[in-house]
Amino acid sequence: MNDQILLTPGPLTTRIETRQAMLRDWGSRDPAFIALTAELRARLLAVAQGGPTHACVPLQGSGTFVVEAAVATLVRPGDKLLVLANGAYGERIAAIARRMGRPVEALRWPENRPVEARRVAEALRADPGLTHVALVHCETTTGLLNPLAEVAEAVAGAGRHLLLDAMSSFGAIGIDLRSVPVTAVMASSNKCLEGVPGIGFALVEQAALARCAGVSPSVSLDLHDQWRGFEKDGQWRFTPPVQVAAALAEALRRLEAEGGPPARLARYAENCRTLLSGMRRLGFEPYLEEAWQAPIIVTFRMPDRRPPLRFASFYDALAARGFLIYPGKLTQAETFRIGCIGALDRHDFDRLLVAVAEAARAA
Amino acid sequence: MNDQILLTPGPLTTRIETRQAMLRDWGSRDPAFIALTAELRARLLAVAQGGPTHACVPLQGSGTFVVEAAVATLVRPGDKLLVLANGAYGERIAAIARRMGRPVEALRWPENRPVEARRVAEALRADPGLTHVALVHCETTTGLLNPLAEVAEAVAGAGRHLLLDAMSSFGAIGIDLRSVPVTAVMASSNKCLEGVPGIGFALVEQAALARCAGVSPSVSLDLHDQWRGFEKDGQWRFTPPVQVAAALAEALRRLEAEGGPPARLARYAENCRTLLSGMRRLGFEPYLEEAWQAPIIVTFRMPDRRPPLRFASFYDALAARGFLIYPGKLTQAETFRIGCIGALDRHDFDRLLVAVAEAARAA
Repeated sequence: MNDQILLTPGPLTTRIETRQAMLRDWGSRDPAFIALTAELRARLLAVAQGGPTHACVPLQGSGTFVVEAAVATLVRPGDKLLVLANGAYGERIAAIARRMGRPVEALRWPENRPVEARRVAEALRADPGLTHVALVHCETTTGLLNPLAEVAEAVAGAGRHLLLDAMSSFGAIGIDLRSVPVTAVMASSNKCLEGVPGIGFALVEQAALARCAGVSPSVSLDLHDQWRGFEKDGQWRFTPPVQVAAALAEALRRLEAEGGPPARLARYAENCRTLLSGMRRLGFEPYLEEAWQAPIIVTFRMPDRRPPLRFASFYDALAARGFLIYPGKLTQAETFRIGCIGALDRHDFDRLLVAVAEAARAA
Repeated sequence: MNDQILLTPGPLTTRIETRQAMLRDWGSRDPAFIALTAELRARLLAVAQGGPTHACVPLQGSGTFVVEAAVATLVRPGDKLLVLANGAYGERIAAIARRMGRPVEALRWPENRPVEARRVAEALRADPGLTHVALVHCETTTGLLNPLAEVAEAVAGAGRHLLLDAMSSFGAIGIDLRSVPVTAVMASSNKCLEGVPGIGFALVEQAALARCAGVSPSVSLDLHDQWRGFEKDGQWRFTPPVQVAAALAEALRRLEAEGGPPARLARYAENCRTLLSGMRRLGFEPYLEEAWQAPIIVTFRMPDRRPPLRFASFYDALAARGFLIYPGKLTQAETFRIGCIGALDRHDFDRLLVAVAEAARAA
């Protein structure tokens, strides 16, 4: 049924067992689905050791929806958000806050450089009006890993709240909420958790969430009310994507069976090493310095050759060989991206490298 | 795999072929998925004959999300919305507009009475500041069908815009956009279309949509920007639930194969007649007068007996026999609901009636 391998930041290649979990109909207010929702919420919380302090609030929609919901619910009209931006997803958070009419500022770095905790601390000292800070853990724009622990220390040390967009890191790159101070972590079903798309979720400090009744200007994107709904009767306020939820629960059981985030990270890291060394051999240079590269998605520069390699024909030649890659998202350099995540291992990347060699010749 | 029959307003019982369409992974920016999205949008538009005038804008999330997105995108801060309310879903639209800070008024009827076009026309005459009117086509609270054609005439005759929540009617009860003036119709994947939940959509007049750039206070719930995204490159702005989309496309092909909305309505009407006459025989009276009853979902009064029949034990007894019914949502009377929609026919309702007779004795 699945002839193509997805080398994207998600939706990505999932296990057949995960997709088969969607073959059933569920009554969304039936005890069986209420139990599934409870399992889901508990497992998501456990991935980041958030049990005692945080609450898991799943939300219908894409990852962007839950990022917007976290801003809408936690940042009040009189608050002020500082967005740390070194890529398109940081800029998107700033655009969301601006559109909503929330006071927002951006602190920027070049797309190939990580956020620096020192500059964050300075900015927070300089403006006591800043109440919240937003950080993108792994910037999917490039594949860069931002230094979560240092930034979280700087934000908590200044007595402010950190909102962490962990969309493409959650489930693989460890986030331990017992030791790293984060008010809200936002992620989605279809990246390192290897579920299918359709559900985002936030792990939010219960104390912060409890103070946010009526703050969100959106009924649909209100994490406080969504949370109260779950706490009241275990049900979603509005119709949940029941099959997507069943697939996510199955995917979370598989994550545990694999050995949790450390084992998953090890698999992705091996995928990434195989990819990087093989692509270098074929003449493709990564865009990022190795020190900043997360083993999630790699941006490659288009090789300098005549005739030039065009993305569209390279994509088609790879697709014909069963591999779907991803376009670049940089303004400065011509690039493409290859994901390391999904239900894939080193052998899939060995096969990919054979296809890349052929496709580069054919395209 | 599916041992239980869902007699709910959705998620509901779907065809196995629809669920099997979810067994594949899709790259969300791949030409194959772009083609699937185009097919989906064209088929949804064709269900209501909206081709020449309207655009189909699918949106991630539940039906409520797309209702909120329509209000956010089409009703400007200087506009004023009149909500016609005779149930919980009308009240929800008013709550959404209020939370968003949009001027809103509600015109109310009892839950067992349809909206009256005459009173709508009066209200629009009395307040020239009213720019938009929101109507719920079939109020799932009770199962009541509101008079769309008359209300649409009254609204268009007064030069105002109608927003139609057709969540539980779309795909079965005919809406012909060539003759019934509606600015936006909102519905979802998982009701009479018999897809799985996770996608809502709006059919919006292109002329109205084109004027609404930057109106929505929400990036995620912006139907204008979502539409521009589809028009630009055929892609969803943010990660779509690819498997839910594939299931919806399959469900729409099945709708066409069945004979379109008229054939589907005929099947549901037969389900509803079987249900009503059988339940009456068993001593269960419907809450609504027959004239207002849509063949979508029926509200029944709890029978007057000693010892009283309790919903929880009646539910459990029916669930043990393979049928999931739905709780009531009325403030005034103790009721429960049974849906007539989904991949079910008269024979399923014959079997249900046997189970109801047993369950009422056992509970």
